[in-house]
Amino acid sequence: MREAFRVELDELIGDLARMTRLGGRMITNASTALHQVDLALTELVIADDLEMTARCDATLRRCVTLLALQAPVATDLRVVVVAMRATDDLRRMGSLAHHIAKVVRLRHPNPIIPGSIRPMFARMGMLASQFAEDAATAIDHRDALSGDRLAEADDEVDLLRRRLFSILFAEDWEHGVEAAIDASLIGRYYERFADHAVAIARQVCYLATGRMLVGH
Amino acid sequence: MREAFRVELDELIGDLARMTRLGGRMITNASTALHQVDLALTELVIADDLEMTARCDATLRRCVTLLALQAPVATDLRVVVVAMRATDDLRRMGSLAHHIAKVVRLRHPNPIIPGSIRPMFARMGMLASQFAEDAATAIDHRDALSGDRLAEADDEVDLLRRRLFSILFAEDWEHGVEAAIDASLIGRYYERFADHAVAIARQVCYLATGRMLVGH
Repeated sequence: MREAFRVELDELIGDLARMTRLGGRMITNASTALHQVDLALTELVIADDLEMTARCDATLRRCVTLLALQAPVATDLRVVVVAMRATDDLRRMGSLAHHIAKVVRLRHPNPIIPGSIRPMFARMGMLASQFAEDAATAIDHRDALSGDRLAEADDEVDLLRRRLFSILFAEDWEHGVEAAIDASLIGRYYERFADHAVAIARQVCYLATGRMLVGH
Repeated sequence: MREAFRVELDELIGDLARMTRLGGRMITNASTALHQVDLALTELVIADDLEMTARCDATLRRCVTLLALQAPVATDLRVVVVAMRATDDLRRMGSLAHHIAKVVRLRHPNPIIPGSIRPMFARMGMLASQFAEDAATAIDHRDALSGDRLAEADDEVDLLRRRLFSILFAEDWEHGVEAAIDASLIGRYYERFADHAVAIARQVCYLATGRMLVGH
């Protein structure tokens, strides 16, 4: 009986890592769709978001069932608590990738990001994908330190966003209001996506050590 | 023993309602600060955000302790699950009100919202405040139907945001890029705040009926 429970907890953690990687694939595809104005990729992101929501719902239900039937304590309880909270982050990561895909569809066939700020967005997209992969690896290895590492790396995302604003607000911005708003909102989506990946990595710290790192 | 546990669960629910009202007060103050360019009010919002984060952290810890020591089932378990998930929504509601306060501070002493779109923002602020109050009342009365009601009312927030974009993107927008970006981001903050209030009300439905309404 307890052996089956142990297997179930391992599966739960495995699912979390897989869902985090799904989030990473979604933001990678959304970024490629953004830069290449690729409608087929936006459809993939939107389909993956449905998949993500379904998997988050299923995981949440499973957690509640585990709490009711197994009354876990100590580390086992922490696994379930982390899984429950992470589903909310994963759900949002899926939605944020979906938001980017929707902007691409809305403006199609026009490109969204003017050439001058494209490298900045490529970097933001790269960081978001990397953060999701790092968070998934942190789950795989129950790595307590990745939360702090990711939080530090997250400073670059904030810095990029501040630099973006200084360009959008400058006198010589020549691409108009619509492009500026699209860029500022997409920048916001990347920033929030990265925040959620950091939050997941921080929960791995709680999982591994019992130290609750909160607030995001 | 179980009597003490019952009292603790009632306290937990009372705390959730109070924190939801704190979120409502924060967005009300942020809205007033926005329209009156009131720095003192922005300080209050920022202080309240610290308070909100501390209370969310404390509530989350208390939930984990209750799960470990009491191994609740059925409705009791649902109370703890709802409280845990709601702390993440409440934390975000506090952050979003804080974001609006920060924009006011950044642009001070200049007003942020041009006169032509001020009524729209007044309405968004009013709806956000109302949603928080409605979610708190739903918690008080364990009202299973308020989630659907709020989700329906939330359509008006989405509509306002779409109307806002049509104004910002129009040829005759004469307030420049900075004002347009501020308006679009603040509109986004109101929209997300409202979403979190709806999510809390939906969790009350789960609390009252056991039907899990997910996705937000």
